[in-house]
Amino acid sequence: MLNELKEQVLAANLALPRHHLVTFTWGNVSAVDRGRGLMVIKPSGVSYEDMTRDDMVVVELETGRIVEGGKKPSSDTDTHRVLYLEFAGIGGIVHTHSRHATIWAQAGLDIPAWGTTHADYFYGAIPCTRLMTEAEIQGRYEWETGRVIVETFKTRDIEPAAIPAVLVNSHGPFAWGKDADTAVHNAVVLEEVAYMGIFSRQLTPQLPAMQPELLDKHYLRKHGKNAYYGQ
Amino acid sequence: MLNELKEQVLAANLALPRHHLVTFTWGNVSAVDRGRGLMVIKPSGVSYEDMTRDDMVVVELETGRIVEGGKKPSSDTDTHRVLYLEFAGIGGIVHTHSRHATIWAQAGLDIPAWGTTHADYFYGAIPCTRLMTEAEIQGRYEWETGRVIVETFKTRDIEPAAIPAVLVNSHGPFAWGKDADTAVHNAVVLEEVAYMGIFSRQLTPQLPAMQPELLDKHYLRKHGKNAYYGQ
Amino acid sequence: MLNELKEQVLAANLALPRHHLVTFTWGNVSAVDRGRGLMVIKPSGVSYEDMTRDDMVVVELETGRIVEGGKKPSSDTDTHRVLYLEFAGIGGIVHTHSRHATIWAQAGLDIPAWGTTHADYFYGAIPCTRLMTEAEIQGRYEWETGRVIVETFKTRDIEPAAIPAVLVNSHGPFAWGKDADTAVHNAVVLEEVAYMGIFSRQLTPQLPAMQPELLDKHYLRKHGKNAYYGQ
Amino acid sequence: MLNELKEQVLAANLALPRHHLVTFTWGNVSAVDRGRGLMVIKPSGVSYEDMTRDDMVVVELETGRIVEGGKKPSSDTDTHRVLYLEFAGIGGIVHTHSRHATIWAQAGLDIPAWGTTHADYFYGAIPCTRLMTEAEIQGRYEWETGRVIVETFKTRDIEPAAIPAVLVNSHGPFAWGKDADTAVHNAVVLEEVAYMGIFSRQLTPQLPAMQPELLDKHYLRKHGKNAYYGQ
Repeated sequence: MLNELKEQVLAANLALPRHHLVTFTWGNVSAVDRGRGLMVIKPSGVSYEDMTRDDMVVVELETGRIVEGGKKPSSDTDTHRVLYLEFAGIGGIVHTHSRHATIWAQAGLDIPAWGTTHADYFYGAIPCTRLMTEAEIQGRYEWETGRVIVETFKTRDIEPAAIPAVLVNSHGPFAWGKDADTAVHNAVVLEEVAYMGIFSRQLTPQLPAMQPELLDKHYLRKHGKNAYYGQ
Repeated sequence: MLNELKEQVLAANLALPRHHLVTFTWGNVSAVDRGRGLMVIKPSGVSYEDMTRDDMVVVELETGRIVEGGKKPSSDTDTHRVLYLEFAGIGGIVHTHSRHATIWAQAGLDIPAWGTTHADYFYGAIPCTRLMTEAEIQGRYEWETGRVIVETFKTRDIEPAAIPAVLVNSHGPFAWGKDADTAVHNAVVLEEVAYMGIFSRQLTPQLPAMQPELLDKHYLRKHGKNAYYGQ
Repeated sequence: MLNELKEQVLAANLALPRHHLVTFTWGNVSAVDRGRGLMVIKPSGVSYEDMTRDDMVVVELETGRIVEGGKKPSSDTDTHRVLYLEFAGIGGIVHTHSRHATIWAQAGLDIPAWGTTHADYFYGAIPCTRLMTEAEIQGRYEWETGRVIVETFKTRDIEPAAIPAVLVNSHGPFAWGKDADTAVHNAVVLEEVAYMGIFSRQLTPQLPAMQPELLDKHYLRKHGKNAYYGQ
Repeated sequence: MLNELKEQVLAANLALPRHHLVTFTWGNVSAVDRGRGLMVIKPSGVSYEDMTRDDMVVVELETGRIVEGGKKPSSDTDTHRVLYLEFAGIGGIVHTHSRHATIWAQAGLDIPAWGTTHADYFYGAIPCTRLMTEAEIQGRYEWETGRVIVETFKTRDIEPAAIPAVLVNSHGPFAWGKDADTAVHNAVVLEEVAYMGIFSRQLTPQLPAMQPELLDKHYLRKHGKNAYYGQ
């Protein structure tokens, strides 16, 4: 079942090492079939070289029940589930420990919007979540990781479609998009702006966020209803 | 028409990923036929793997009218047009978001001339433009981007042939040269000196510009009328 | 003799350049046969391209005597011997001068546990040894290097299985594991967290160690007796 | 003539891009035949892909006269000549603008001996030359570049065999060795310690030089008359 979606999820997972976003098996991509309430996700601990379409695991969104697949789904499955359940518009999710996005997550800082590369994809700072409580960590940890992401977007009134990535504090990034491929695309851009941000801040320590009108221009010429942009 | 120029523009565009100057399709190269008043530029949003000679778009310099080509020209076409119209000596232009040049652009700083690598290609600091006004951003943005580059060179009395690159504030670099290939060459050097500059400044925070006589020696032994240099 | 172990040691040595952990021949991996009291180690000064299984050298743990092999064992053999003799649970050891772990060693600093990438493999800070005394350096230097590692773990009450790596002050890292392959795996992770640590600290200079409960959660979900994790 | 030496010089030049030490044609390697008073050096401005043995240029050490070769020798030929004439023990020289060594040169700083990677090859800090005078720059510039290197070693009483590299202030590194291959080897190590030095200093800003007894131990176990080391 869901063979086309499985192909997409496999291809998106295989794109992670090609874009230098992962070491070993540190990363996972999923995609959702909203109509059936199912998600397809990478199995846990399988190397990218050996992975096939039929290793992809089908999980019921609401219950977390494994519907198909001989392997265990990624341990981060519950985080993906929360995001699909709460962020209605998204179709694919990627989690990595990509180096420079993870550096910002470890430092516990948002990545400010500092240039048009950022503004072409993210309509404002990429938020870093608060630290999790002891109860959250010791409870349903992966589920709570999803909850703290959702809380960050709700509390700060951020639209998940407008800023399709987050930094989980002391952990690393999640990115998403309309499908698995777009999620990976956003994860690549995130890593790029994370890298550039570290050294932009080194050159100009008190660097203010970019001009709001420039952020508007770049984001909206690609994503607004009057979008016209292509490089 | 202009098949030879199209081949050059295609080759120069394909050189960008090979030199690690671009992610996805973030970059564009053009070249000009001064006699006919036409420029050839990369189409918008086409991946480097799929691009062919006949995808290149021919645009009239004065009017921006598409003279040939089934695809939309790069959204940055108007910036290229302004530069060709104002900088009489240049034959090719490249725009990228290459990492380290973009870092200086985001930090809003010129790249000082700090060594002979720089002096071999750029006869002084590589300037960063002023921030654009709200009116410029909300108006003919890509055209105004070209205007602010031209203003930077005029106000600061810089010869475009002597410093064949610029950093657009909060955005990224443009580089140029006598043809598309030279423009790419200069974009590679720019990225190299941008990288080295970040860490030269880290080691010696108040690093002064290099000696003017050393700048003269290196620039002029390669570019002056008595040029003799080859490494 | 020990052909299977030799194959493992060869494969682990060849993995070092593939993971970009070594320049030239700067690295060595060994593995131990506890039953026979023998270790297998890379020969000294042989390039990775030319190395074969039969180049691996068999050394008696207790005495350092070469039991088999036509080439000299790595000069670091005595350091490996001390670690096998003192750290009962380990089966493989790797030494490299990998860039970012070596940077921390040169700076004389522990790598704090700053994120879950770290916590997935190392149950606390990765220690840096004290400077060696003149007598240690001028005496049996490689043996004393092993002794100072052991002293670090004993004095600071660290379990070698829980933190399978160390930074030798002014020198570089050693990592270990249940076998040669796991030792290399840990050396890769060490390099990764070393890289991320440099820039996490740049972003947040007084960055505290991660929450102990998050360290517990990540380390124990992979390594505790109730381990369930796979990415 | 000198076909074997030409082969060595060609191979050493081709090793530069393989070790990521050069961009475009920014680098040159030479070797010397002391008996005949001749040196072989890369031609100027030829790309690495197209270079053949017979492109190598033979130059008379004492006079600089071209003895054989249809192409112009590297513009840096006079710097090489001075070094061969003054540093009796060396057989090969390499000049690059490798990124991190050049960063130290641009910052005008010596690279301190901060770890055993350094001590395995360089018996103390790698010196940076003084700024050149206006007269030196406007006179026989490339020759004077060699003179200021020699002055640095004489004034500071450094043995060229013990520290086989230098940073030319505001320019970049030269490295040497008993032959062309060893010179390239030393240039690779120089780049490695230059990289590690930048970030070791970032972690510990006032980092003192390594212990002299450790420097002695590592340098002498590889290069002293009782050398025994191999990794």
